[in-house]
Amino acid sequence: MTSYTLSQITAELGGEWRGEDITVTAVQPLSHAQAQHISFLANPKYKADVHGSSAGAVIVSEKAAGEFAGRNLIVAADPYLYFAKVARLFSPVVKAAAGIHQTAVVEPSATVPASCEIGAHAYIGANTILGEGCRILAGAVVEHDCKLGNEVVLHPNAVVYYGCTLGNRVEIHSGAVIGADGFGLAFAGASWFKIPQTGGVTLGDDVEIGSNSNIDRGAMSDTVIGTGTKIDNQVQIGHNCTIGAHTVIAAQAGISGSTTIGSYCIIGGGVGTVGHIEIADKTNIGGGTCITHSIKESGQHIASLYPMQTHKEWAKNAVHIRHLSEMNKRIKQLEKLLTGSNGAE
Amino acid sequence: MTSYTLSQITAELGGEWRGEDITVTAVQPLSHAQAQHISFLANPKYKADVHGSSAGAVIVSEKAAGEFAGRNLIVAADPYLYFAKVARLFSPVVKAAAGIHQTAVVEPSATVPASCEIGAHAYIGANTILGEGCRILAGAVVEHDCKLGNEVVLHPNAVVYYGCTLGNRVEIHSGAVIGADGFGLAFAGASWFKIPQTGGVTLGDDVEIGSNSNIDRGAMSDTVIGTGTKIDNQVQIGHNCTIGAHTVIAAQAGISGSTTIGSYCIIGGGVGTVGHIEIADKTNIGGGTCITHSIKESGQHIASLYPMQTHKEWAKNAVHIRHLSEMNKRIKQLEKLLTGSNGAE
Amino acid sequence: MTSYTLSQITAELGGEWRGEDITVTAVQPLSHAQAQHISFLANPKYKADVHGSSAGAVIVSEKAAGEFAGRNLIVAADPYLYFAKVARLFSPVVKAAAGIHQTAVVEPSATVPASCEIGAHAYIGANTILGEGCRILAGAVVEHDCKLGNEVVLHPNAVVYYGCTLGNRVEIHSGAVIGADGFGLAFAGASWFKIPQTGGVTLGDDVEIGSNSNIDRGAMSDTVIGTGTKIDNQVQIGHNCTIGAHTVIAAQAGISGSTTIGSYCIIGGGVGTVGHIEIADKTNIGGGTCITHSIKESGQHIASLYPMQTHKEWAKNAVHIRHLSEMNKRIKQLEKLLTGSNGAE
Repeated sequence: MTSYTLSQITAELGGEWRGEDITVTAVQPLSHAQAQHISFLANPKYKADVHGSSAGAVIVSEKAAGEFAGRNLIVAADPYLYFAKVARLFSPVVKAAAGIHQTAVVEPSATVPASCEIGAHAYIGANTILGEGCRILAGAVVEHDCKLGNEVVLHPNAVVYYGCTLGNRVEIHSGAVIGADGFGLAFAGASWFKIPQTGGVTLGDDVEIGSNSNIDRGAMSDTVIGTGTKIDNQVQIGHNCTIGAHTVIAAQAGISGSTTIGSYCIIGGGVGTVGHIEIADKTNIGGGTCITHSIKESGQHIASLYPMQTHKEWAKNAVHIRHLSEMNKRIKQLEKLLTGSNGAE
Repeated sequence: MTSYTLSQITAELGGEWRGEDITVTAVQPLSHAQAQHISFLANPKYKADVHGSSAGAVIVSEKAAGEFAGRNLIVAADPYLYFAKVARLFSPVVKAAAGIHQTAVVEPSATVPASCEIGAHAYIGANTILGEGCRILAGAVVEHDCKLGNEVVLHPNAVVYYGCTLGNRVEIHSGAVIGADGFGLAFAGASWFKIPQTGGVTLGDDVEIGSNSNIDRGAMSDTVIGTGTKIDNQVQIGHNCTIGAHTVIAAQAGISGSTTIGSYCIIGGGVGTVGHIEIADKTNIGGGTCITHSIKESGQHIASLYPMQTHKEWAKNAVHIRHLSEMNKRIKQLEKLLTGSNGAE
Repeated sequence: MTSYTLSQITAELGGEWRGEDITVTAVQPLSHAQAQHISFLANPKYKADVHGSSAGAVIVSEKAAGEFAGRNLIVAADPYLYFAKVARLFSPVVKAAAGIHQTAVVEPSATVPASCEIGAHAYIGANTILGEGCRILAGAVVEHDCKLGNEVVLHPNAVVYYGCTLGNRVEIHSGAVIGADGFGLAFAGASWFKIPQTGGVTLGDDVEIGSNSNIDRGAMSDTVIGTGTKIDNQVQIGHNCTIGAHTVIAAQAGISGSTTIGSYCIIGGGVGTVGHIEIADKTNIGGGTCITHSIKESGQHIASLYPMQTHKEWAKNAVHIRHLSEMNKRIKQLEKLLTGSNGAE
């Protein structure tokens, strides 16, 4: 079992240890941590949990440290980020177990460096080029004419269609599909004519795509996801979208085709957008919101959730949603009768 | 073709047959059933359909039986449940066709009882332990260090990440992914630092997970789904969720991380929740509802759907949603003018 | 590189070329097109983009042609459809590379014509019958007792459960699952009893199913999707649904069980429906709408979106949604006081 003393941790990650230089073997939340564990206080409102915790050591901010003078501490500028880095110390990124499994199929024209791990029943298509140290796990498929950077990970049964480009350290979870056809149709009088989707997908360095998510290929040019952008499970990104760098998109969001999203945005779970709009940098969109037009000013917080109620309350109130315009007119009428004005409109 | 007489069915499942002891070969709905079929009346409001049906026999409640005295009947306390059991008689659970397909890959350290069926191109990782009679179908993947109970079924191309625990008779449909990384990120000033997801997933006995659904692994401890809970397709369960026993979650619901859901809940399709909340036992949440805070009292029925309208009506009314606060103030003002009071709120 | 002169294109597709009979090598949007490209003007409001484009030729309507007299044009009745057809000229439908990959598994009782392409690690189950020229790509699975028409395409890791029927030229994208069990449960007092799902799925000719979408098998008879219907990614179609011909369903829509949808409908992204309802032909449902009851009149445009706002505005206004009934009563009371009437109700 991996173990670190507090001084070894601060030597590696910075920060300052206080109390006893104990040895810890794992990170655990305050509620579960025992004497051999290190825990953390990210939000001051949980201070009481520190007092009640059996953790051997706790990561805290300088501001909070005073209150826990009797305990073993690591004092860090950002305890949550520090916790993440300690967790990574205990769980380093898995390196490729170099080699091609005997049941994998690698087309002769593909380039697969010896440092790569190609799992059981994986498939690498013609002319596809992998960087160093990639891990293409069991049943994953990379079709022809793709280019992958170094240390790309495809989890079991992930699929990358032909002609896509993945940066370094891109990670694609199981069931995610990169480069399936965008949904492009022209109506031909009695039936739909499919518009060939001839673009590809480009994923920047350090992009992560969650399980069962889709990034559709562009109709003519590529769908593009910027460096460091992280996408959760069951997210749908339509064709020709351009998403900036270091944006975060939570589960089940759906971004319609030709949408442009800036950098450092935070898109909540289940968000939907219409297509052909732009969302400025650093926009924060609350979960479940439907984005119906462009957001041009950066840094805004957007929301549009129907408030939850008991079914009985909902039934009583929701019916009036259908009559808001009329309700407004009735108020205007009253205002007119009472004051002679047309009201506030 | 399997066939049963009515008396054979009641001998097996209880209930009472009346009329002629005919032989039936399948269950069919009232509208499709012919003389060789047995059908059922679950909801009394469809009584007329019984009169119009060509079904050879009908499963009815004692209360309804009187009205169909001339027909062949099985009288049962709960006709819908009885129908389900008769359907199961005609379609027994498929047993494992014991054996490991020659194209399957089973790591040497894995434990696979001889009673298991391991399909073409399936993969069983190192140290993984399967119970008796499991069916791991074509292309399904169980990574290393998992533990599966007896008679677990993984449909084609389902994936279970490393370190997960599945109870007896768990069934995972195609494209479902158990144990992919939770969406845990710490902001590091200019980019996102991924928090290692070192917990696993624990699924209780008789859990069913629908196609293309996701149960994410916990950040530090396991995500847990209780005994007998049934999850439909395209459902997302975030990391560190705890879901009780015998809860039902319909398609496309999304449960954010660290949510606790009780037992015997019914969660409708497309429901979303914020994270870090609790939902009491026996809560019934209507389809499409966004759950924004904890539901502490058990047995409630919750809803929050924006009512559907024609686009024209919607456009006319929805605009006022943005001005409800102002509308409320205008009413208050009118009330003050008229009555001198501040109104009802 | 494929290339066509304008006259070759019009010889193939109709329409009329004007200006110089130049050679073009690809279709590109107005903004990207260079001298060797052909572009198109589908929407007159983008006329200015034609003037600013470097495209060698442009597809335009007769009405718009006058304005671009100096340019090389193809004049077509429907420029968008014409563009789609030109794009298809440059990217013809890929034909099957006939042959069965040595790692594929085809059960002996299956019928696979020599014209079919069966990819690496693909699986074809017992008694399944494929038509001519099918492409079953890497890792795709067709279980037993299915029947596929001619030129069916299954992209990598797509899954078709047993007993399903696919028409000619059906295309199933990666991660899509056809025929997984519908979500049918009967409550048995303390736990849920699963209702066997013994129907199948029937997909008409020219149906396309997007990546990670699901079409569940029927409980007793088939779930049916009509000819030419196109379904985007991450769509869920519940058991026993019947969907007409040439209907289009955008990403992440969820159609509950036993719903009947007509032909030529357009269902927006993220739409949800309750079950057991009917939606008439040519219904257009805006993205994000929840359909709570049948739509019986054809050709309607339906919507139900909560309007987006800044979080601050939303918080201020949404709270009143819970009090609309009361607000209505207060208005009534004012109307009564002022006019003696009960108001407009």
